Amino acid sequence: MMEHGGDWAGFQREYGGVPLDFSANVSPLGLPEGVREAVDRALGEAGWYPDPLCRVLREKLGACYGVPPEWILCGCGAADLIYRLAAVKRGGRALLTAPAFSEYENALALWGCQVSRFALREETGFAVTEDILSAVTPGLDLLFLCEPNNPTGRTTDRRLLDRILERCAQCGTLLAVDECFNDLLDDPEGHTLLSQLPRRENLLVLRAFTKSRGLAGLRLGYVLSRNRALLEAMEHAGPPWAVSGPAQAAGIAALEDGAYLPALQELVRRERPRLAAGLAALGCRVCPGEANYLLFYCGVPDLPRKLGERGVLLRDCSNYHGLYPGWYRAAVRGAEENGAFLNIMKEVL
Amino acid sequence: MMEHGGDWAGFQREYGGVPLDFSANVSPLGLPEGVREAVDRALGEAGWYPDPLCRVLREKLGACYGVPPEWILCGCGAADLIYRLAAVKRGGRALLTAPAFSEYENALALWGCQVSRFALREETGFAVTEDILSAVTPGLDLLFLCEPNNPTGRTTDRRLLDRILERCAQCGTLLAVDECFNDLLDDPEGHTLLSQLPRRENLLVLRAFTKSRGLAGLRLGYVLSRNRALLEAMEHAGPPWAVSGPAQAAGIAALEDGAYLPALQELVRRERPRLAAGLAALGCRVCPGEANYLLFYCGVPDLPRKLGERGVLLRDCSNYHGLYPGWYRAAVRGAEENGAFLNIMKEVL
Repeated sequence: MMEHGGDWAGFQREYGGVPLDFSANVSPLGLPEGVREAVDRALGEAGWYPDPLCRVLREKLGACYGVPPEWILCGCGAADLIYRLAAVKRGGRALLTAPAFSEYENALALWGCQVSRFALREETGFAVTEDILSAVTPGLDLLFLCEPNNPTGRTTDRRLLDRILERCAQCGTLLAVDECFNDLLDDPEGHTLLSQLPRRENLLVLRAFTKSRGLAGLRLGYVLSRNRALLEAMEHAGPPWAVSGPAQAAGIAALEDGAYLPALQELVRRERPRLAAGLAALGCRVCPGEANYLLFYCGVPDLPRKLGERGVLLRDCSNYHGLYPGWYRAAVRGAEENGAFLNIMKEVL
Repeated sequence: MMEHGGDWAGFQREYGGVPLDFSANVSPLGLPEGVREAVDRALGEAGWYPDPLCRVLREKLGACYGVPPEWILCGCGAADLIYRLAAVKRGGRALLTAPAFSEYENALALWGCQVSRFALREETGFAVTEDILSAVTPGLDLLFLCEPNNPTGRTTDRRLLDRILERCAQCGTLLAVDECFNDLLDDPEGHTLLSQLPRRENLLVLRAFTKSRGLAGLRLGYVLSRNRALLEAMEHAGPPWAVSGPAQAAGIAALEDGAYLPALQELVRRERPRLAAGLAALGCRVCPGEANYLLFYCGVPDLPRKLGERGVLLRDCSNYHGLYPGWYRAAVRGAEENGAFLNIMKEVL
């Protein structure tokens, strides 16, 4: 089994054909307007190196978020930036939630960090509780939170988030908040820590074009922080030219399509409850996720293979710390695809 | 000053306009045929994650080189693979030539390796001599050679290369040969160690689409080795999905354009001696480079600024170990551009 979802090439080799993919939490709307043309134009300069500092893209992002471009670092997807952050914190102590996106731990292990896990419990809907405050202690170098969490789709109460940030400041701990799915929440503004950036040296926010801008294939992520020494250290903690020319051009164009994100948010807002209700009606235990994916439990043995034979790719979540066989994650997609998925699930269950 | 050449965005901010760029050793022929269409097709799937294992591309490369795809690992440019290799050799002892491409040392320093440098001397035309054999000792973990070397453009005598490889095998040393510019030599076959791959576990060959396929902006490199444990360790020594979907598609298409490389080789073979003679006629001391770039010494103070004001971007090589102010590297480009460059040099000198 591959560690992550979205492995089309593997699916094709095992089952043949293009999958009905519910395993990757990406946008069902395809590319934002103007991206195709922008990439085509960028190909005219693709014989040259891309701008290693992503200057134009960072200026555009800075204008979007109302922060100086110096507060932004771009990478080859969010994953690249997670590894660069781990490099800067090498050998340090880090705290993660369990479950959480597995690349945090992979990166930290690569760089010799000592990782502790804060267990999220099914009984409390996998929510981060205030018990986490006592797990943040002096000498903790890094706390990774994923808001909303992947694979649970849950967010942390905003007042608690502020208390966690304050506690981290007291302990000299960097709070890295992965907000890659924030734009897919019903209330993105209510769940982001971006507004705290000017006040907090110990805050880093991670974002990507992967999900909310439909650009997973192009590899483009970024971090925001007012801690410029941290961003410079991350810049040098990996290869130069990490962001390709087409990715930079695509990102700039995607930010100019103002209609894309509202349309995507509307789709997710409409389809998520229907998918959740459909899975629950089939007897699955569905975690009350708030983003464009749903974690659920289903005791049917060998579900991925049965779905695979019917052309469906689903994310098996048994390899997440804190989960076990029977947990799966389904992306929220368009009405037609969701219906097809539920029909096939019904057939299998 | 940026560490590397090709910084268009920086040039534009300092001097305005698009530079006549002699600082980046890239192909003057633009994109291979079919790349634009292939990238455009790949954009249709760019909302999905790219194949993290680059399966189709690796099969294609394997067929080109007559090796199994399992002997190949692709990365986000050659630089990504240099960093992954350093990660696998973390804390070890490494030997480099001086001068050499600076990312070897950056990557090794990041990963806490102890670096020794084998000095290449101007008196011997910056050639690697057999003295290097005695610098390879038991306990040396890694020897990086760049063939042809960057920035000198010199190759190592093939019989000496074989002896170095043998000596490395005796000492338990991995020989990593960066052959990113091999295709631009007059006799590529005569200078590659690819034929040794099946015999040698301690050999890793690094190649890229950057230079010989005109794809610097797309970020695509690869390594070949029969040491699968090494490749697997490198695969996990950095983020997944390092190679974008468009880069994979572009690489596959580029390999199908059989006319591109011969045309590029023909251009370099014709233009290199003319550029060398032109620089020598202007009083520059030109290193007898064999690839698509020439290292030369020119004592004129402030040359990059004077050229910059005239729209020319040149690589200042004073930041290479073993070189000093006054050393520059010029790419070999088409006849017209080379002529324009020489005219502007004449004006300045």
